Amino acid sequence: MDLESVKRLLERGEEESQNASIDAVSNKAKFFDPFIWEGIQFDVIEPGRLVCSLKVPLRLLNSGNFLHGGATAMLVDIIGATTLHTVGGQTTGVSVEINVTYLDAAFADEEIEIEGKVLHVGKAIGIVSVELRNKKTRKIIAQGRHTIFLTVPSKL
Amino acid sequence: MDLESVKRLLERGEEESQNASIDAVSNKAKFFDPFIWEGIQFDVIEPGRLVCSLKVPLRLLNSGNFLHGGATAMLVDIIGATTLHTVGGQTTGVSVEINVTYLDAAFADEEIEIEGKVLHVGKAIGIVSVELRNKKTRKIIAQGRHTIFLTVPSKL
Amino acid sequence: MDLESVKRLLERGEEESQNASIDAVSNKAKFFDPFIWEGIQFDVIEPGRLVCSLKVPLRLLNSGNFLHGGATAMLVDIIGATTLHTVGGQTTGVSVEINVTYLDAAFADEEIEIEGKVLHVGKAIGIVSVELRNKKTRKIIAQGRHTIFLTVPSKL
Amino acid sequence: MDLESVKRLLERGEEESQNASIDAVSNKAKFFDPFIWEGIQFDVIEPGRLVCSLKVPLRLLNSGNFLHGGATAMLVDIIGATTLHTVGGQTTGVSVEINVTYLDAAFADEEIEIEGKVLHVGKAIGIVSVELRNKKTRKIIAQGRHTIFLTVPSKL
Repeated sequence: MDLESVKRLLERGEEESQNASIDAVSNKAKFFDPFIWEGIQFDVIEPGRLVCSLKVPLRLLNSGNFLHGGATAMLVDIIGATTLHTVGGQTTGVSVEINVTYLDAAFADEEIEIEGKVLHVGKAIGIVSVELRNKKTRKIIAQGRHTIFLTVPSKL
Repeated sequence: MDLESVKRLLERGEEESQNASIDAVSNKAKFFDPFIWEGIQFDVIEPGRLVCSLKVPLRLLNSGNFLHGGATAMLVDIIGATTLHTVGGQTTGVSVEINVTYLDAAFADEEIEIEGKVLHVGKAIGIVSVELRNKKTRKIIAQGRHTIFLTVPSKL
Repeated sequence: MDLESVKRLLERGEEESQNASIDAVSNKAKFFDPFIWEGIQFDVIEPGRLVCSLKVPLRLLNSGNFLHGGATAMLVDIIGATTLHTVGGQTTGVSVEINVTYLDAAFADEEIEIEGKVLHVGKAIGIVSVELRNKKTRKIIAQGRHTIFLTVPSKL
Repeated sequence: MDLESVKRLLERGEEESQNASIDAVSNKAKFFDPFIWEGIQFDVIEPGRLVCSLKVPLRLLNSGNFLHGGATAMLVDIIGATTLHTVGGQTTGVSVEINVTYLDAAFADEEIEIEGKVLHVGKAIGIVSVELRNKKTRKIIAQGRHTIFLTVPSKL
């Protein structure tokens, strides 16, 4: 997939996310992806690297009022997978492994930056690191890696 | 926290989840936790162990029509944290590390079983393993671990 | 590979390890594997499962006088890879991911039990969990997973 | 611990490693640390960051003739722990978690660079990322993280 297609794909994602709340009620449609994507903006899209911004929304907070650890893991998942698209080639895959280390809290309305970097992409396996930082203080909030097997599930 | 309190807490969680869809629309309330909890039933609650059931809902699917990797990570997060409550003592904490290995797909409406097991709980750190299985075939869908630091964020 | 071959392979490994110390001095031979294998005994070898025993040797201690975290990681690596042999088929592969969570200390001369369990094995990927336990107290010392890509490095 | 002390500590480590082979034979001394440290040179020591070089030695190869995955995990362990010393303060601790993702092979006599970076250090927990690269091609060989609990084992 070329970079233009990735950009189009990401824009389409933004449209979808606007309908997410409606789907949530009817509960008749999948909406996990748009639920997370909502509010994410793309600052840098280049081969092997993706930088996004997100103002921490209320819907992703935990009971301690900061970004939910599960939401962070979710971001490592989706930003990792999307970053892999920027290097072209095989565009579908299944997750093999996700890990996340939590370093700092991100509170509501704080601007965070999420950077995906492709560490490796081969015929069968793609590996991406994902880092969340506070946009103002530059402190790292979390660091993770997402390992993806680049073919159909039946080949796993 | 004693087991009775855990049970009450979990029941309250189920109530909350029924209001999740409404909150989703207004987007004025945090609803990440209830969004995931919705539909989860508790089969076994004993000290150090929690077994839950979930019929894979449409809202947690990915584009390949099986349980989203991010949703699985989310389950490792919340079931891990909740399992830790079953051993009593310190009940708040912050995530230090989550890892998930994906083994098989779970498709819509398939019944899955999620088992949390406390591996270690000390003064400062609690570690829980979480396994997702297909309830019928018993095949493992994912296996993860959640490491929690058992005090307030400022002590991290 | 059938179970008999695995057993023969493991026995050969034990022989090799007796020459490890000599090799260490000459430094002319690889000896990382036998260096770790030395003293490991096989209690159970069955398809998809391997149980070994090890009396924690001085050479694997850290400065705190308990089993070195690096040695534990090494055990997750080699016992994980070896457990995969018990299910036959593709016998070579490269590591994709190793993770280890440390739960308790194992001191010199304590008997530990190391159990490998195959979680998944497909055409391309094999995943094994490895748990180290104190043989007497049954307390878990460490738990890890080893993900292996089942073909030649060039295909990665 | 100040940087000067770290440098002295590291130099002492190098001396010790020269006696490692002898200890290996007698098997009367711990030598896992010096066994790994042997040949490692320190290029950069600054607060929060450590860069080392190592010419891949025969003793750390696997049966495929490239750097053993267990040796890589070991390097993530020890370089991670040592990097934490560069920020001073609490100097002892126990490993909580180590993870390693393997990206490329490092063959015998290839020069590799190992970089440790402190991601977080608080009162109780220190987290360090460790990356191994081919010194010539700059390709990443492995990336890992080491999470350390900064007090005595009994407090874990």
